[in-house]
Amino acid sequence: MALKTAEEYLESLSKLRPVVYLFGQKVESVLDHPIIRPSINSVARTYELAHDPLHRDLMTARSNITGEIVNRFTHLHQSTEDLIKKVKMLRLLGQKTGSCFQRCVGMDAINAVDSVTFEMDQELGTEYHKRFRSYLRYVQENDLTVDGAMTDPKGNRSLRPSQQADPDLYLHVVEKKSNGIVVRGAKAHQTGALSSHEILVMPTIAMREDDADYAVSFAVPADTEGIIYVYGRQSCDTRKLEGGCIDVGNARYGGHEALVIFDNVFVPWERVFMCGEYSYAGLLVERFAGYHRQSYGGCKVGVGDVLIGAAALIAEFNGVEKASHIREKIIEMIHLNETLYACGIACSSQGYPTTSGTYLIDLLLANVCKQNVTRFPYEIARLAEDIAGGLLVTAPSEKDLFHPEIGPYVQKYLKGVEGVPTEHRLRVLRLIEGLTLGTHAVGYRTESMHGAGSPQAQRIMISRQANLEHKKALARFLAGIDEEKI
Amino acid sequence: MALKTAEEYLESLSKLRPVVYLFGQKVESVLDHPIIRPSINSVARTYELAHDPLHRDLMTARSNITGEIVNRFTHLHQSTEDLIKKVKMLRLLGQKTGSCFQRCVGMDAINAVDSVTFEMDQELGTEYHKRFRSYLRYVQENDLTVDGAMTDPKGNRSLRPSQQADPDLYLHVVEKKSNGIVVRGAKAHQTGALSSHEILVMPTIAMREDDADYAVSFAVPADTEGIIYVYGRQSCDTRKLEGGCIDVGNARYGGHEALVIFDNVFVPWERVFMCGEYSYAGLLVERFAGYHRQSYGGCKVGVGDVLIGAAALIAEFNGVEKASHIREKIIEMIHLNETLYACGIACSSQGYPTTSGTYLIDLLLANVCKQNVTRFPYEIARLAEDIAGGLLVTAPSEKDLFHPEIGPYVQKYLKGVEGVPTEHRLRVLRLIEGLTLGTHAVGYRTESMHGAGSPQAQRIMISRQANLEHKKALARFLAGIDEEKI
Amino acid sequence: MALKTAEEYLESLSKLRPVVYLFGQKVESVLDHPIIRPSINSVARTYELAHDPLHRDLMTARSNITGEIVNRFTHLHQSTEDLIKKVKMLRLLGQKTGSCFQRCVGMDAINAVDSVTFEMDQELGTEYHKRFRSYLRYVQENDLTVDGAMTDPKGNRSLRPSQQADPDLYLHVVEKKSNGIVVRGAKAHQTGALSSHEILVMPTIAMREDDADYAVSFAVPADTEGIIYVYGRQSCDTRKLEGGCIDVGNARYGGHEALVIFDNVFVPWERVFMCGEYSYAGLLVERFAGYHRQSYGGCKVGVGDVLIGAAALIAEFNGVEKASHIREKIIEMIHLNETLYACGIACSSQGYPTTSGTYLIDLLLANVCKQNVTRFPYEIARLAEDIAGGLLVTAPSEKDLFHPEIGPYVQKYLKGVEGVPTEHRLRVLRLIEGLTLGTHAVGYRTESMHGAGSPQAQRIMISRQANLEHKKALARFLAGIDEEKI
Amino acid sequence: MALKTAEEYLESLSKLRPVVYLFGQKVESVLDHPIIRPSINSVARTYELAHDPLHRDLMTARSNITGEIVNRFTHLHQSTEDLIKKVKMLRLLGQKTGSCFQRCVGMDAINAVDSVTFEMDQELGTEYHKRFRSYLRYVQENDLTVDGAMTDPKGNRSLRPSQQADPDLYLHVVEKKSNGIVVRGAKAHQTGALSSHEILVMPTIAMREDDADYAVSFAVPADTEGIIYVYGRQSCDTRKLEGGCIDVGNARYGGHEALVIFDNVFVPWERVFMCGEYSYAGLLVERFAGYHRQSYGGCKVGVGDVLIGAAALIAEFNGVEKASHIREKIIEMIHLNETLYACGIACSSQGYPTTSGTYLIDLLLANVCKQNVTRFPYEIARLAEDIAGGLLVTAPSEKDLFHPEIGPYVQKYLKGVEGVPTEHRLRVLRLIEGLTLGTHAVGYRTESMHGAGSPQAQRIMISRQANLEHKKALARFLAGIDEEKI
Repeated sequence: MALKTAEEYLESLSKLRPVVYLFGQKVESVLDHPIIRPSINSVARTYELAHDPLHRDLMTARSNITGEIVNRFTHLHQSTEDLIKKVKMLRLLGQKTGSCFQRCVGMDAINAVDSVTFEMDQELGTEYHKRFRSYLRYVQENDLTVDGAMTDPKGNRSLRPSQQADPDLYLHVVEKKSNGIVVRGAKAHQTGALSSHEILVMPTIAMREDDADYAVSFAVPADTEGIIYVYGRQSCDTRKLEGGCIDVGNARYGGHEALVIFDNVFVPWERVFMCGEYSYAGLLVERFAGYHRQSYGGCKVGVGDVLIGAAALIAEFNGVEKASHIREKIIEMIHLNETLYACGIACSSQGYPTTSGTYLIDLLLANVCKQNVTRFPYEIARLAEDIAGGLLVTAPSEKDLFHPEIGPYVQKYLKGVEGVPTEHRLRVLRLIEGLTLGTHAVGYRTESMHGAGSPQAQRIMISRQANLEHKKALARFLAGIDEEKI
Repeated sequence: MALKTAEEYLESLSKLRPVVYLFGQKVESVLDHPIIRPSINSVARTYELAHDPLHRDLMTARSNITGEIVNRFTHLHQSTEDLIKKVKMLRLLGQKTGSCFQRCVGMDAINAVDSVTFEMDQELGTEYHKRFRSYLRYVQENDLTVDGAMTDPKGNRSLRPSQQADPDLYLHVVEKKSNGIVVRGAKAHQTGALSSHEILVMPTIAMREDDADYAVSFAVPADTEGIIYVYGRQSCDTRKLEGGCIDVGNARYGGHEALVIFDNVFVPWERVFMCGEYSYAGLLVERFAGYHRQSYGGCKVGVGDVLIGAAALIAEFNGVEKASHIREKIIEMIHLNETLYACGIACSSQGYPTTSGTYLIDLLLANVCKQNVTRFPYEIARLAEDIAGGLLVTAPSEKDLFHPEIGPYVQKYLKGVEGVPTEHRLRVLRLIEGLTLGTHAVGYRTESMHGAGSPQAQRIMISRQANLEHKKALARFLAGIDEEKI
Repeated sequence: MALKTAEEYLESLSKLRPVVYLFGQKVESVLDHPIIRPSINSVARTYELAHDPLHRDLMTARSNITGEIVNRFTHLHQSTEDLIKKVKMLRLLGQKTGSCFQRCVGMDAINAVDSVTFEMDQELGTEYHKRFRSYLRYVQENDLTVDGAMTDPKGNRSLRPSQQADPDLYLHVVEKKSNGIVVRGAKAHQTGALSSHEILVMPTIAMREDDADYAVSFAVPADTEGIIYVYGRQSCDTRKLEGGCIDVGNARYGGHEALVIFDNVFVPWERVFMCGEYSYAGLLVERFAGYHRQSYGGCKVGVGDVLIGAAALIAEFNGVEKASHIREKIIEMIHLNETLYACGIACSSQGYPTTSGTYLIDLLLANVCKQNVTRFPYEIARLAEDIAGGLLVTAPSEKDLFHPEIGPYVQKYLKGVEGVPTEHRLRVLRLIEGLTLGTHAVGYRTESMHGAGSPQAQRIMISRQANLEHKKALARFLAGIDEEKI
Repeated sequence: MALKTAEEYLESLSKLRPVVYLFGQKVESVLDHPIIRPSINSVARTYELAHDPLHRDLMTARSNITGEIVNRFTHLHQSTEDLIKKVKMLRLLGQKTGSCFQRCVGMDAINAVDSVTFEMDQELGTEYHKRFRSYLRYVQENDLTVDGAMTDPKGNRSLRPSQQADPDLYLHVVEKKSNGIVVRGAKAHQTGALSSHEILVMPTIAMREDDADYAVSFAVPADTEGIIYVYGRQSCDTRKLEGGCIDVGNARYGGHEALVIFDNVFVPWERVFMCGEYSYAGLLVERFAGYHRQSYGGCKVGVGDVLIGAAALIAEFNGVEKASHIREKIIEMIHLNETLYACGIACSSQGYPTTSGTYLIDLLLANVCKQNVTRFPYEIARLAEDIAGGLLVTAPSEKDLFHPEIGPYVQKYLKGVEGVPTEHRLRVLRLIEGLTLGTHAVGYRTESMHGAGSPQAQRIMISRQANLEHKKALARFLAGIDEEKI
């Protein structure tokens, strides 16, 4: 059976020995670190729910490679139905974790690499796709979590990879050997890097001939020699070290990003999926980005559901849930959130098969989806702060709440409606604070902005995909300038 | 063969003898009236394109009633694929006409009446559904255009039907006879009333027992005795009387609304589909409104394509198409337009069968769709006005353009870039003016606001459909207040 | 006494003999033309209210030139108080006319030309300012309305004046004579051209040496030989020809724009205020645009007051004025409208004297003011359409309302709440239609967009005026990079 | 000389002995607590800059009470010029501290209490104003910082003070003695409570007779017996305990809020300014709120300047400062920020004297100002996050940056353009993080939302102040329904 349990996942992860730095210290065990652990819990839920009869239909699929039931996160989309189920699965997990659960980057990477390697092989006579499918079988059979690693540090953004003062600011091949390649560079903002078994590296932008060394894709185990992780700090991260369970907001789950440094890492040829074919770099970026922009129409909607629920709760706890302006604000939050979902569903529904058989989303609509994600979660968060009231940012710490002397005062004066404990009110406020200002705001706000490409990247794709010439022809006909064209 | 040609449609329409008033005059022939004709041309395209091999797949469907190929506008949706094709068909027609082509109200009405009558019969033992299906067979076999008539004048909106000072401000049954019923009242804002063969009347709001006489649904030929049409005037309507072809903007196509008065109209029982079953009035409204809110995710997107194309053209004609702020504005227009489309597709993709077998859209997403339609076309129009420049509203008339003395001056001074005739520039400006301020703005702006229900109606539905309790439970779990619920 | 009455204004205007074309016909008398007259009525109000004791303080000022009380529209601002009163006067007139009352372009032009000619003379030893002050004395003493004419047709917007295929696409000097100059070209979108006694021409953009012939400013009587006016047609303009008083919306007042062609017009030297001093063209544009961008923080706010009032009225007539969503929408309209006013007041309050003694507004805030005007009136109009309901664009004509046969039906079925005649309801709807789609929408919407420069022009000015270096220094200090600078 | 230096301020503050809890611990010295100290530094700047010749004109004023030069924060506004200078002073301090500098609540409180007590005395024959002026003289002569304390905890927001289950949820008089009163209750969200010498308490809402005990205003020294402070925790507050200077963002300055509990506090009569005059509670709230809503048009604009500067800097450090979309985003940030400033200036410019001689702002425009502040800083912050890039939330800690082993990697891979140290890049990112997610986001975002009253409070005031009847009369006249009214 290919489906790991949550426990098996944790067990397997505990066997890895990655080199990790956090706050200037080497981390001995990622599972035991209170700052890191919540994000591993989020990934664990992707394993746990796959065994839940209620969610199995969304969480798993029958593999076209192994013929077995696999976790959908390791699955190649075989239909628009698969694409839609992906979005629903991500919304479900967003609801269950209120966090970034990280595993979609790997899913999006394998789907993108699959069709691109197929097309490369067809045109160039390479054998990347065969290698990749063999690798993917291994991933599916072992139900692995894969970090899909695309974003390079980029240095001066106005310069191309080969023009940078430091050639390592984009990851590149530094040596080709008979048995493999050696690479150097880094991948920044790597979501879920420390929750993953594997890293699947892809190039980060379209490239020209000069940049051929930078056109490289491969997979390695997460604790391969030469890989170093530097954990990205988040707003309010150290609240997880305080030992409480309220001020941290969502205490169970979280997400993380890391800087992943490849310091002369060796990759055997059987794990190399692109090496110098610069003309395919752009296509791979476009497809991975497309899948990942679709993803945001699921996961962020699920987190949005949590924030909407929290806003509705705090309105009740404050005694204002029937005020018409409060109701209108909650409707607006729902409306915006469901608009994002509609975009996620639509780009999936309009998907189509690539030549490898793997389904691709509608790229125009997937970019439209993500573009809205760079806007609406901010407005949803603003409305949540409006509904929550100022106590969101002025409430005393939980240590004060439970303090023998000051505690009773805090309990007394921060009480809302009768029947709701002050503690519950503070819990909901801290949940909202976490999502709008704290650790979870990293995932809900800034990641909504920059994950899967910054807003301008989507706008460029929207411009390319929109067929403006057709629209101009429509206008010319109706304005009486030209005869009708098809 | 059930598919009429455009010519056959016009021929069949010319045989009707409705009583029509326009500008205080009785209209002898709606087909020959220059103000009315463009909207009939729009409907004619729904017939014409059904014969076009390129568009046949979208424009037609195999009827589940007759087994024949019918125009999709007369079809009961049998799958989510049907629902999606509907949206694509509407976008296509919006592109082809740049107008409201009116025929969707009938399509939305027949689909709504079908499932509701089925459920009424199941519960109440009535036989409305059988009657309705028989009627629908007639519509399909004759490829008729049906005006789906819902909106009553409503008088004082804070009062219910039976509370109004004048009982006729909502349409109601005034007499029940052995062979049928007599109704009195009116339906306002009837889109395409004069382009239609039939009127299918539905109640306009949820009702209580006191309002039972107002819970009435039926169909009658458009020229039934006692029906009087008063044509709604539109911005710039009389430009169509001026004899030119430029100032009118989109000279070929248009849309219209009429006030339709039922002055003691007799309806035979076989055409009565609801008569007093007040508890089903709300359901019928909800479903018709739902389908119609889906529709706007297609038709207005198509018109938006025309406006985007026109904006891109005028930018070229002005020599500014490469300015980055112009490009960004066009991308924004596309983004907003495609967001509407995504909502139309999503609510279709997530549709499901009712007990009659007819597919319903996802109601939450359909309402979200329409809510966005009450906003984005206004912003798209604003951006189009921005790109167009002030000449949009200060250009001289086409009579000046072609005047022997002043014409050469106008030609000279209103020239844009070399190679584009001044006339073309003015044609595009007039097309944009029509869509943002003129006759076509009625359909693109105000109808986007109020058609299929005003914005607040959608917000109420969004609130009802959103399952806020579930969201609150998610938040309670993650805040650490409760254990997880499903 | 320098203050003309409204009657004297009309009398004086009737003595002019401009060459005017409208709809391909020569206009014999602008005062008697039903399409043109309402805009002259608007200007007449600027004379009438100057005699009204209630408004005299805003409408007049003591001239620094003549020492007499003059109409404020001919006054040079002598203090920030004058600048603020200007804004208040414009709001008052917007309220009183619901229209563009046109006379501010002249006021803004004289203030701009005054300080720029002073500075030119100081640097270059020219005597333009003396000439100009002499001209302005004449304007004040005769209480003239001046068309401040800036915008050239511009042809290909990516080319400079001297690069155009047709050299006349920017107005320029074609001959210099001993007694004056001869100019050729045109000014487009000339607000109030036919309501004016005089035209004060200014260059339209910053210029380089090659464009020296285009750097020209002068004044001529409006009916000078060689000047030809082509009247710009507006949405719904011909409703004014229909003979009614309802469908036209605001029947009393209006605004207009015309294309003004200068076909070899002679200007005597004493009326020439710039002739070849290309380096001052940009400064003149910046100041005129600045004053005019301030103006929009007054006039459009006044029109906004009318539209808000109309929206509140129709809500009452529909019986929905107490619905919370209606109240919130009206509050939002007020909020947006007052934000515009705040910007108009602020840029006035922060004004300062130029070297000529004439006060200039704060340019940054004036540009911010206008930038908001390119946005908020559109949203206010959208909200008005929302509140009005669909009848706004589907109501029958007034000829139907008063028709012996169909009239009673229209009266009956379009009734709103008891006690309000159907006619009143339609009057308010037509007023709103006029402001959002009809003739008055030209002034309220599109002119808000493009008048005083299109949005991007303000953005460029905002960028220039914002002192970004100072903001960066603030950030560097607080980030701990640098020591504090002043 | 009434002007304390910053050192004298710190010295005077150190002499107070307030009872303060933070993280469950009693704070011995607020000046020495690393979490609290930055906010005291912000207040210290209000003293320091009053001695700076460059800023003296804004920072000080001549007292109408003492005739001496006093810090403007203790001054009663004597003119619109004073009101405008207040806004400019607040902008300056926002720029200098990038924080909430807290002292304006006292300034706004003294100005509000001054005119309201004057009017109370006039009507009721009380002597509150005299007492208050005597108190204010003491404040001015000692250059004290005053916490203006208005907001009660409020419990169930749908109930009035006297209806609450716990009568102490609004602060009230529990005993009247010959020499003074005893009060119990709390004030929540008290900005700058621990940086202040004095607390000036005011009621929090309009009241009815039943609530008379809650209509109480008075002043007490900040360390009066019975007062207990519970410090409000902020996002990222504990970064200030980490010992670094980068991750904390703005290391020098900050703001704070505290819950201030009045546990049977005695107030002598000479410091009581309202005691039972419930009909004046609403007026006092309206005026304090009005002044404080004006304040936000200054202070948040100054902080906005810092954020805009930081965004411009990071764009340079990333090498994208010339990209047109980046430039447009920075222009948009400036535009929004200056719109807020315009509102602050406008409501000041249109101020007017109350009967006490103290100037009040225009209340409508002040509420419009604050309403915009509840929106635009969120959008400015969103744009800053957009420009900053994802590194904003994924960058390693400063301990990693300076770590002997991992530091060089971080230095290498997080380098932007040549010539800018990685450290500088991270400093700017942390400054932006602080303002958008961290401790300073509390002041810039959530306080912009809820400070001086939540958004709905402003909307109610906007509705009340807008004179809708006048607008309706304007519309009735122009629609041809009524004759013109004044």
